[in-house]
Amino acid sequence: MPVETRDQALIRTLIERWAEAVHRGDLEGVAADHADDIVMYDVPPPYEGLRGLEAYLKVWPPFFRWQAQGASFAIESLEVTAGEDIAFAYALLRCGTEEDLRRDPANRLRLTLGLRRQDGRWVVAHEHHSFPYVARGGQSG
Amino acid sequence: MPVETRDQALIRTLIERWAEAVHRGDLEGVAADHADDIVMYDVPPPYEGLRGLEAYLKVWPPFFRWQAQGASFAIESLEVTAGEDIAFAYALLRCGTEEDLRRDPANRLRLTLGLRRQDGRWVVAHEHHSFPYVARGGQSG
Repeated sequence: MPVETRDQALIRTLIERWAEAVHRGDLEGVAADHADDIVMYDVPPPYEGLRGLEAYLKVWPPFFRWQAQGASFAIESLEVTAGEDIAFAYALLRCGTEEDLRRDPANRLRLTLGLRRQDGRWVVAHEHHSFPYVARGGQSG
Repeated sequence: MPVETRDQALIRTLIERWAEAVHRGDLEGVAADHADDIVMYDVPPPYEGLRGLEAYLKVWPPFFRWQAQGASFAIESLEVTAGEDIAFAYALLRCGTEEDLRRDPANRLRLTLGLRRQDGRWVVAHEHHSFPYVARGGQSG
């Protein structure tokens, strides 16, 4: 692995802290480094995605309630590519209840982030969350 | 909408041409602007994603066979954020057979791309494809 640049390290820390805030159910921590105009493709619909920080923040309380059953939300791998003012990152996370992970131990939440530097600090402008689609005898895209 | 920069326009064209190549079933066109070390999170597993151009290219022939039934693969919206050497983009696509789109007309393929400038041109280094997960009475992440 090449040595991380300062910006890669900053973004890695930002994403690790965000994931810890998600796991704590800390909405303020989740929002701390997110742009007002964030566009999120969440695991569930809406099909067209969620636009704006207000819509983004409404996603989390129901997730926190589900997580309170004892679900994990833990980064397993994270790769960051950072330029001068724009960056992207992708990660795999263990995300599920103990039962979910017993039933399907290899399943991972896939996460892709787009970031920009704004007023001297990195903010998340795009988030794409998904689980792979396991076809039941059909085809998928 | 603000006026696009030259790099935003280049990347928009690159992605539009890629989507047209996918729809034509043109594997060479699909691969034309992709990095050797691309990491893809595809709609179906593998859970850990696909690594490298060789693995990426194996995805497409089965998809082309499925698409030959008359499925669409058409960009409906596309937003590009480009810096000096790094960029990301996200898009919604109509992707499905006529029957799929009759059954679920609003469903869209969500696509996020990470790009870098390499040897003076933009290449795709990361691709994340997903459909939203519609829960059947359960919870999703």
